[in-house]
Amino acid sequence: MNGAQALVAAAIDHGIEVCFANPGTTEMPLVLALDSVPGMRGILCLHENVATGAADGYGRMTGQPAMCLLHLGPGLANGLTNLHNARRAFTPVLNVIGEHASWHLPADPLLASPIEEVARMVGAHVHTSAGPETVASDLADAVDATHRNGGAVATLIVPHDAQIAEASQGSAARRAAADRSFIPRHVTNAAQVLRDGNAAILLGGEGLSEAGLMLAGRIAAATGADLLCDTFFARMERGGGLPQPAKLPYFPDQALELTRRYDKVVIAGTRRPVAFFGYPGLPSHLTTQAQTVPLTGPGEDTLAALDALAGELRAPMDFDPVAGPLPDMPAGALDAQSVSAVIARLQPANAIIMDEALTVGTPYFDASRNAPRFSHLMLTGGAIGEGPGAATGAAIACPGRKVINFQSDGCGAYSVQAFWTQARERLDVVTIIGSNRSYNILNVELARAGVTEPGPITRSMAGLDRPFLDWVKIGEGFGVPSVAVDTAEGLAQALQVALAERGPRLIEAIMT
Amino acid sequence: MNGAQALVAAAIDHGIEVCFANPGTTEMPLVLALDSVPGMRGILCLHENVATGAADGYGRMTGQPAMCLLHLGPGLANGLTNLHNARRAFTPVLNVIGEHASWHLPADPLLASPIEEVARMVGAHVHTSAGPETVASDLADAVDATHRNGGAVATLIVPHDAQIAEASQGSAARRAAADRSFIPRHVTNAAQVLRDGNAAILLGGEGLSEAGLMLAGRIAAATGADLLCDTFFARMERGGGLPQPAKLPYFPDQALELTRRYDKVVIAGTRRPVAFFGYPGLPSHLTTQAQTVPLTGPGEDTLAALDALAGELRAPMDFDPVAGPLPDMPAGALDAQSVSAVIARLQPANAIIMDEALTVGTPYFDASRNAPRFSHLMLTGGAIGEGPGAATGAAIACPGRKVINFQSDGCGAYSVQAFWTQARERLDVVTIIGSNRSYNILNVELARAGVTEPGPITRSMAGLDRPFLDWVKIGEGFGVPSVAVDTAEGLAQALQVALAERGPRLIEAIMT
Repeated sequence: MNGAQALVAAAIDHGIEVCFANPGTTEMPLVLALDSVPGMRGILCLHENVATGAADGYGRMTGQPAMCLLHLGPGLANGLTNLHNARRAFTPVLNVIGEHASWHLPADPLLASPIEEVARMVGAHVHTSAGPETVASDLADAVDATHRNGGAVATLIVPHDAQIAEASQGSAARRAAADRSFIPRHVTNAAQVLRDGNAAILLGGEGLSEAGLMLAGRIAAATGADLLCDTFFARMERGGGLPQPAKLPYFPDQALELTRRYDKVVIAGTRRPVAFFGYPGLPSHLTTQAQTVPLTGPGEDTLAALDALAGELRAPMDFDPVAGPLPDMPAGALDAQSVSAVIARLQPANAIIMDEALTVGTPYFDASRNAPRFSHLMLTGGAIGEGPGAATGAAIACPGRKVINFQSDGCGAYSVQAFWTQARERLDVVTIIGSNRSYNILNVELARAGVTEPGPITRSMAGLDRPFLDWVKIGEGFGVPSVAVDTAEGLAQALQVALAERGPRLIEAIMT
Repeated sequence: MNGAQALVAAAIDHGIEVCFANPGTTEMPLVLALDSVPGMRGILCLHENVATGAADGYGRMTGQPAMCLLHLGPGLANGLTNLHNARRAFTPVLNVIGEHASWHLPADPLLASPIEEVARMVGAHVHTSAGPETVASDLADAVDATHRNGGAVATLIVPHDAQIAEASQGSAARRAAADRSFIPRHVTNAAQVLRDGNAAILLGGEGLSEAGLMLAGRIAAATGADLLCDTFFARMERGGGLPQPAKLPYFPDQALELTRRYDKVVIAGTRRPVAFFGYPGLPSHLTTQAQTVPLTGPGEDTLAALDALAGELRAPMDFDPVAGPLPDMPAGALDAQSVSAVIARLQPANAIIMDEALTVGTPYFDASRNAPRFSHLMLTGGAIGEGPGAATGAAIACPGRKVINFQSDGCGAYSVQAFWTQARERLDVVTIIGSNRSYNILNVELARAGVTEPGPITRSMAGLDRPFLDWVKIGEGFGVPSVAVDTAEGLAQALQVALAERGPRLIEAIMT
């Protein structure tokens, strides 16, 4: 057994089942080990940011890390932005990176670069194996690290000579899961605040799981508190009668308008909310210090804290499920409202919605509140181009569930290579491209900044026209059957067809 | 004048003419400044690695930095690998990155990341502006840094509040160009070695410019020395009778077979050659220490040193130009040899060839030795996905020259977004995709490692089949007229048609 085989064996022992990869020469022993040590699925991606985005989607759906097998520093660099999104989502992700042979590195070969320094952008656990004997335990340490602080990105770098030298197998014993707890005093404080009335609970992380929402719903029923959630959440269970937190608006003035209604905001499973960008004259934080009542952060045991809080408040076991109509089926030309309504009406029970729709899908959150139960994933770190990769990983994680990737065109253009992996693995992903042919958020920002007549370069920088992207050709070029529609009726029909079949489909929803 | 306008004005004053961009909210003042301070062309790219690849191609053709306008840490991260290639090519490139407002950053907004640390992967000069008053001089310092050490990547980070606050304009005075020199003793040594006979000169950097090659040709004529060049050069002027260095083979055993013929190897404009990867039993360096005779490194004045060396050797002013036939026009099915031959036969005088063909184009270097004069650019840092972006930048740099991007399919799939910018800017780029439907270098490496029957995961990781990429649809999806051919005759005809027109074209050369 060589070092590469010891690594793969240890990874399998520690529960890693999937490897998203774009390997090179310095990872070939690891690739060979995926064959010689059976137990892990290897999935090729045409770009590392698809691999890391897939690991993020996979980790959000399973709670377990997938392995990203990346080629040296450049392979890591290509995958960094979706690792950044994974970091902000508290998703467990394990990077394994080949490094030049340790005796070759001092000669500074062309592909050499400071891998450790770059990896620290996305996670604190970064380690280079000293030799073949430590590879298996290094792997175990890295898997442990992915479960710390509520979920994290960990990076293990393995020199080529450590991969090919004789190694002993690591212990199969899994490490104890990291102890998670909460601060009892925070529960007492929160209970007092909620009893006093005019309070809200801002939920994130586990607070948005089914169990978390049911606990929060009981607490709300007992106290009259409103439920809120982060603007960009990693995953929320939604629909099917679950309590529905109100989402903090994107722009800080609008978010403050919401939070100022409350004397106190209890923070559960997330942090005190922060504006996405800083705008002159508006604060960074979306609650005042005096308003903010901590219950748990992302690394704490939010479910146990909410349970304790419900007990403290003697919250009823039952409460009325959220009920209401779905939006009407729209007709005619497509806009953000009508695309959102069509998806919300047609999404099947138990769907996974990977939502990187941004301005083309702002209404979707409200439109889908009465949809059948689904898992709603969002872009978490603001690094655009996550949707197609994350949808790929979610489909690998949950082969029995339909994945719908509601995707803006500007963000989607970053990650078109994901469609190839969806085709190759025959994944059950329907991509709906909301095609407004612009980086429209920039137009919104310009209008907010009072720029009424932007010059030609500014207009050009926000425009995805000249030429239009032809998403049908792009999808089919990467192997996914694709169709374009420009009416609500057309979208509904195309989506029904796509949902009735298995396998990847792409629908370009051309908006006016 | 605000800080953003002061920055753009200073950039124009310091000779920056082009900005490749994918901006976001934190760069909007800089985008607006591109309109309000006229003089710089703004070119939108759908992915930052296209922008940075374009800046690399532009800088190689002009010797001047283009500006890359990137959105925060994730924008930089997305563009890192082509910046890595630019670093290895000694290309001057200027990154300008917006940062969150300095008062907002302590709240750790979602897009926040350690920009400076990541930027150091690709260049030593990394600076964050302290405020609006220093933005213009910070820009001047960064431009200076791009010209140091033979060309470098420099990064200037400008917080949003420094962009929008009132600033004074910087001085229009350009800094003095960095002093470059050479070590006279190295010239004397080299002359002695070359007089002794059985020597070669390994050329890189300026040594591969027209002037450098003509000097090297005179020295070779005077001494009988052979001329060599790096396996992956940034730019070489070739064809049209210019001296033709032999290229160091990629694999170290083959490279050593070549270098061992010589008692001494004089190094001019590059460094002692290093194997691309380390192979057990083979050395890192491709010349021995005793063989290696330094003349100049990349940061030194190679042209002056070669001129001094030619003088020392009383080299003749004239020598016989390289002459010989072009390869025969091939017929029938396509392979690396025949695709290379067709391109070499048909490329027009004064073409720019961006060559990221790797295994699908290995024969091109020899096939093109007797082509009409052209500039030959290669992938320099091994971070694949450079060709389409670099071809885009070369076409912006040299609007009167035809650019041919000879591109492998595996590498090309990384950077398909570049085709959109080629279409948008109506650039005169013909992309020829050598479509062998695999990461074939991995198969070559496996065979070298003695793996005769790779397992299914290993085979899968090297295969771009299942499904085939449809390059015609991909090219057209991004707006470039595209065609597929599978014979030499078909390729010749399609290439003639593409070369006869202006504007971008894509040809998929399907190989058997």
